[in-house]
Amino acid sequence: MVLKTTIVVGNPKPRSRTLKVAETLVEKLLAPGSYELEIIDLADHTAEIFAWPSEEMAALNARVAESDLAVFASPTYKATYTGLLKAFLDRYPANGLSGVTAIPVHTGGDLTHAMGPTVNLAPLLVELGAVVPGRGFYFVAGQMDRLDELVEQAAAEYAANLAALATVAASTRALASFSSPVA
Amino acid sequence: MVLKTTIVVGNPKPRSRTLKVAETLVEKLLAPGSYELEIIDLADHTAEIFAWPSEEMAALNARVAESDLAVFASPTYKATYTGLLKAFLDRYPANGLSGVTAIPVHTGGDLTHAMGPTVNLAPLLVELGAVVPGRGFYFVAGQMDRLDELVEQAAAEYAANLAALATVAASTRALASFSSPVA
Amino acid sequence: MVLKTTIVVGNPKPRSRTLKVAETLVEKLLAPGSYELEIIDLADHTAEIFAWPSEEMAALNARVAESDLAVFASPTYKATYTGLLKAFLDRYPANGLSGVTAIPVHTGGDLTHAMGPTVNLAPLLVELGAVVPGRGFYFVAGQMDRLDELVEQAAAEYAANLAALATVAASTRALASFSSPVA
Amino acid sequence: MVLKTTIVVGNPKPRSRTLKVAETLVEKLLAPGSYELEIIDLADHTAEIFAWPSEEMAALNARVAESDLAVFASPTYKATYTGLLKAFLDRYPANGLSGVTAIPVHTGGDLTHAMGPTVNLAPLLVELGAVVPGRGFYFVAGQMDRLDELVEQAAAEYAANLAALATVAASTRALASFSSPVA
Repeated sequence: MVLKTTIVVGNPKPRSRTLKVAETLVEKLLAPGSYELEIIDLADHTAEIFAWPSEEMAALNARVAESDLAVFASPTYKATYTGLLKAFLDRYPANGLSGVTAIPVHTGGDLTHAMGPTVNLAPLLVELGAVVPGRGFYFVAGQMDRLDELVEQAAAEYAANLAALATVAASTRALASFSSPVA
Repeated sequence: MVLKTTIVVGNPKPRSRTLKVAETLVEKLLAPGSYELEIIDLADHTAEIFAWPSEEMAALNARVAESDLAVFASPTYKATYTGLLKAFLDRYPANGLSGVTAIPVHTGGDLTHAMGPTVNLAPLLVELGAVVPGRGFYFVAGQMDRLDELVEQAAAEYAANLAALATVAASTRALASFSSPVA
Repeated sequence: MVLKTTIVVGNPKPRSRTLKVAETLVEKLLAPGSYELEIIDLADHTAEIFAWPSEEMAALNARVAESDLAVFASPTYKATYTGLLKAFLDRYPANGLSGVTAIPVHTGGDLTHAMGPTVNLAPLLVELGAVVPGRGFYFVAGQMDRLDELVEQAAAEYAANLAALATVAASTRALASFSSPVA
Repeated sequence: MVLKTTIVVGNPKPRSRTLKVAETLVEKLLAPGSYELEIIDLADHTAEIFAWPSEEMAALNARVAESDLAVFASPTYKATYTGLLKAFLDRYPANGLSGVTAIPVHTGGDLTHAMGPTVNLAPLLVELGAVVPGRGFYFVAGQMDRLDELVEQAAAEYAANLAALATVAASTRALASFSSPVA
């Protein structure tokens, strides 16, 4: 099986370092050849983000919702995710990211807002039905020269967390046995 | 393999409805015979909770840290988890719950503080290195007559989330391939 | 002195009930004739919200920053404020709302997300340097028939809080005595 | 009028640097001679903190509730306030800190958890009815040699915020005019 993977970048400026951090995380986390990757740079879609309905946006939303793994990456604006990223997520109905494993990523100038991806972006993704396999990942933008090293550390933690979760998954009751299976 | 499972109850009053909710969640989520369960009712340990060192508390902390799955259940006090539960968690070093799948559970009088387990208790458990497989579970205490039904819905969602995570786990790079494997 | 007051509405749909709730709050809180009020309905500015620079947006941002009191009102989207409201606030530099007393208001379908204005919107406004005089105000949209009564209760609480703060203000050292006065 | 001021320290270890930071903040913020100060070091009361009822704890709770200004200071444990501080606050009924101006203070090893007092402790105090005049104050413990300078900056910001709030307070409707005045 090929893992469907998507990166969503919430930076109003395109092709940002935030995108580069997210790409590196996917490379470090997943086994080569095991996945396909699509990148959605929301900077390319600001003209449509408040249009309703919008075929363009609906296609993007669907792509992410069908992903097995999605990385949501945003620069830190006012201690949290950008309005651009939130506007994209606002287009989903309730539980619109059900079944998606989601990793929240923030970049920032220093450690002051390092809690942001864990206390703000992770609960937002969870509210949409996604599952976040651990802490959010916060990357200090001035450390691009240590990008590989720091991202590998985070990837190792996510991989270990996912392995631990798989152990628990093996002991749950069969999904079919629930009288109210989740859609 | 038998799944090590623990319930930690943060209610200063022993044998509470909060404990009953947590027990029901474990029963509904896990396949019969696949797990062993230990219950830690912190109401029984208030005299030791600020003692340092304490063999009694160290044994409890170790039991939870070695669990595959732990349910942390608390009544809602001031819109969030109790000080008693936090005092127990404060005894861990950094990443003290690494490798544990943790489910946050709050009970409360009405829906006013329904966000609590997702925005307060979940980030706290994640900070300790645990992984939370979805939303926190909030149970309105006045609905004990619908306990089985409501808990089964939540359990079905956790089971589906865990299955989705297992799919992603199968595509990560081998843990041994990381140069900095997580302890 | 006439109090400069502004309402900022973050609903992508114009002239919403959320605006009505905010207007009622201002009426109930402030003494008639003591203030001037301007309303900024962000639904009218979605085409410009990601434009940079933008004279139109800069004028709106300035108007709010110069306010003595600003009410920030948003429907609840995904348990928190809208991306539209966040995109407006993202345009401020650090401390861009310094000196502004800000009241966060959310409307929602039921109480499930009642914590939102207190745990999400209030910290965001505070991060920008604003001061929030108490809890955020959450209004269940189905209670429009009780709007006056419920808003008056909230207004009474804000008025009492502001009076308490004024007592403390009278005992602080003179602003001129600080070697590093805030801009 | 003499301002009733209280410091509550949530460090399980007595006479901590966290207490020193809080004391300095009060000195820098308030005009000499304008206030009386009482210090409650919760480390002295761990044996009683879960006792119910407790005359000792009730007296402490009352002292804080009657304060005009209270500083709540805690070391950072697991990215947030300590269980000891929360256990003290759990003893209050709903709105138990109504009418109190409250300043949240955290100390920590580096900036990683700098958001803690603003996103965790401030909403908790607000939930109890207190009013927080701006951001929480986070102090990096390694900077004790710059204590006076950094605390004065924070005090200047609180003083400016309180002055701004007093302006708005002057324009609210008279408290007596509300049909449902807050207790």
